[in-house]
Amino acid sequence: MALIVQKYGGSSVSDATSIRRVARRIAQTRLAGNDVVVVVSAMGDTTDELIDLANELTQAPPTREMDILLTAGERISMSLLAMAIDALGVRAKSFTGQQAGVITDAEYGKAKIIDVTPSRIQRSLEKGSVAIVAGFQGVNQETNDVTTLGRGGSDTTAVALAAALGADVCEIYTDVDGIFTADPRIVPTARRVTRITYNEMLEMAANGAKVLALRCVEYGRRYGVPIHVRSSYSGLVGTLVTDDTHGDIPGLLPEDAEKSNQHGTAEDEMEAPIISGVAHDRTEAKITVVGLPDVPGTAATLFEIVASSGANIDMIVQNVSAAQTGLTDISFTLPAADAPPVIEALTKARSDIGFDELLFDDQIGKLSLVGAGMKSSPGVSARLFAALRDAGINIEMITTSEIRISVVTRAEELDSAVRAVHTAFNLDSAAEAVVYGGTGR
Amino acid sequence: MALIVQKYGGSSVSDATSIRRVARRIAQTRLAGNDVVVVVSAMGDTTDELIDLANELTQAPPTREMDILLTAGERISMSLLAMAIDALGVRAKSFTGQQAGVITDAEYGKAKIIDVTPSRIQRSLEKGSVAIVAGFQGVNQETNDVTTLGRGGSDTTAVALAAALGADVCEIYTDVDGIFTADPRIVPTARRVTRITYNEMLEMAANGAKVLALRCVEYGRRYGVPIHVRSSYSGLVGTLVTDDTHGDIPGLLPEDAEKSNQHGTAEDEMEAPIISGVAHDRTEAKITVVGLPDVPGTAATLFEIVASSGANIDMIVQNVSAAQTGLTDISFTLPAADAPPVIEALTKARSDIGFDELLFDDQIGKLSLVGAGMKSSPGVSARLFAALRDAGINIEMITTSEIRISVVTRAEELDSAVRAVHTAFNLDSAAEAVVYGGTGR
Repeated sequence: MALIVQKYGGSSVSDATSIRRVARRIAQTRLAGNDVVVVVSAMGDTTDELIDLANELTQAPPTREMDILLTAGERISMSLLAMAIDALGVRAKSFTGQQAGVITDAEYGKAKIIDVTPSRIQRSLEKGSVAIVAGFQGVNQETNDVTTLGRGGSDTTAVALAAALGADVCEIYTDVDGIFTADPRIVPTARRVTRITYNEMLEMAANGAKVLALRCVEYGRRYGVPIHVRSSYSGLVGTLVTDDTHGDIPGLLPEDAEKSNQHGTAEDEMEAPIISGVAHDRTEAKITVVGLPDVPGTAATLFEIVASSGANIDMIVQNVSAAQTGLTDISFTLPAADAPPVIEALTKARSDIGFDELLFDDQIGKLSLVGAGMKSSPGVSARLFAALRDAGINIEMITTSEIRISVVTRAEELDSAVRAVHTAFNLDSAAEAVVYGGTGR
Repeated sequence: MALIVQKYGGSSVSDATSIRRVARRIAQTRLAGNDVVVVVSAMGDTTDELIDLANELTQAPPTREMDILLTAGERISMSLLAMAIDALGVRAKSFTGQQAGVITDAEYGKAKIIDVTPSRIQRSLEKGSVAIVAGFQGVNQETNDVTTLGRGGSDTTAVALAAALGADVCEIYTDVDGIFTADPRIVPTARRVTRITYNEMLEMAANGAKVLALRCVEYGRRYGVPIHVRSSYSGLVGTLVTDDTHGDIPGLLPEDAEKSNQHGTAEDEMEAPIISGVAHDRTEAKITVVGLPDVPGTAATLFEIVASSGANIDMIVQNVSAAQTGLTDISFTLPAADAPPVIEALTKARSDIGFDELLFDDQIGKLSLVGAGMKSSPGVSARLFAALRDAGINIEMITTSEIRISVVTRAEELDSAVRAVHTAFNLDSAAEAVVYGGTGR
């Protein structure tokens, strides 16, 4: 049949009851004739509890030791899950990141995968076992020390293993039914997206959508791994991240397909929509450098200083220079958490750069409209701006990519902005069903 | 200075406070100029909690997965301990059993160490780091899977590493001040033994003394590793297990030696005593096979059946045959937990062997008097039997080795028997101090 990689997050394996539920799902998939590799996160709050323990002992734990500590969480969940599957009469074997061949660089706490050599997993599959792999971890091959992959690490483990094994699909199980056109907590009428391209998903993830980690999508795009985001509770068809616009969803259990058809969510593909969704982000801040001399090289000097403070700049806007003064202003946004060292460095360099003052604003929100269809649909930005104007919302900054338009608003206006834009692009569904039981259509 | 291996059990690292206390002790030892390798068990009740989790999921967890699960406990304690030492400004690095080179066979749950290749530990020591090693675990070299060593595993890890590294001493930290002449809970006037030979310690451990695991002492004897059993709370000198009858205790911190002198426990060696202690054991049961034909080969048949049931026999007594019947009785003792399969197998083979009936008695106690001096001291057994007679205690079985005499009594008489024998051999100390502050002398 198919080779399926499934990833279950911490909330899906938080206690014995949920571990048994997940084990049944895995056993079903195996008994339907598929080869199954499962990537699992640490149980529930284990990781946070271990971090608390470390913080009780020291303010600055050595990163190598921190990674050894945190990876204990996945050892516990992976072995318990293997036991639960075994108890159902299906063979299962658990593997650490090292045993699964997840080789990384030496950046403890945020290691990057540099190779995946899953020969042990392949041998285990050939013997008919389900392979359970610890997510979030790899091995620094030079020292044979365990490393962790940082945020979104388990999703990335799953997609990287799927790529290395040539899996038919990588299923990411989560607590929602897939990718939605907006965050259902803000837009209750948001609807599930059936399919989305890697580039659209990347723009969504990079601009605040939290269901899939950016690096996991990047990995999927690079190796062409279809990623199926779905709920471990409902078993319904979720969202397929892929560049194929049609075709079956790989690895679907017959009962899942049937259940999804009853909910009207499976095969009724509509024509590819212009817009996939509206993402939002409240974690950025804006710095404005006022009264900069408008001469060549000023921006370069400015952003060299910013970059050396370790900040990732997002949007940049430079005002048209006022002719009488020869001075200009530059505003840029960055993660609010990155701002303090940037402000410190710029303040120090004030006389070198020669600006008047520095303004800091962390009360901003960013709305991003994402859709591959906007490349060939004129008028998308006009419709976006009109919707915001009609809702009485002021736009402070604008940037665009081929498949995205982002605007900055006041933070307190962001929710209304998201709802207005969602409606203006006809994304609202009739039903208000949000998390389980599908989203109508 | 010296190369010291220290082992801390789970109760010594049960929370952040105790981890910090242990870290200070390790840092002191390092700052005194010693090379330090630390073996650590899982925190407090972690292992029991993990076993409970597994039992919630399945009655018969696969042993490989169980070992993966349980070894998570030492990853947590070892990395936290390394962080706590690092926070004191002393370099420390943690290592799994695999990284420390503890190579075992493939008997998950009760693996035997077949080699120790601690080259990573040696390199780490050369760089001036304290090495923290996960106790209780090794690696099955054929598969690179983690294994656990079973009961007493962390003590065994410590002694095995000390042997492989050629350490000057292996310090086993526990919650009592050393080895006592009897269990202080039964004999409050028991006193600490200053030195004890490996053979005596083996007899004590094999006959019920719980402070040191049998296999750890066996390892120490085989490689001549001095084992210093002491308290992680008091810091006093404890008991040195060694065949050297004199000489300094290796690796002692100056402040520990001074403190111990004040308690009168350090250097006032008395002449090697005849008796090291009185051990007791309540975990055995007695099976009596009544009415066996007294012909050659009967005992062989009987004990072949017992052995194939997986039981370890301890004492055996055969009655003198009654001339008129040609029948005899055989009694033997074994761990009570091993008894049910033995009884089942013997009952099945009753007609083959040809005995009358089978008696089972789990209300027995075993008292063992241990001392290398008894080889050259006549009258030890007479004194033992007289002490029990004077206390009105009946002896049901007797066995002896070169340095031990064991007797079986009724279980409810065992405590009185231990106290009577302890007094008869002048082992009582004047003081009643038991656990901390030394035991007087």
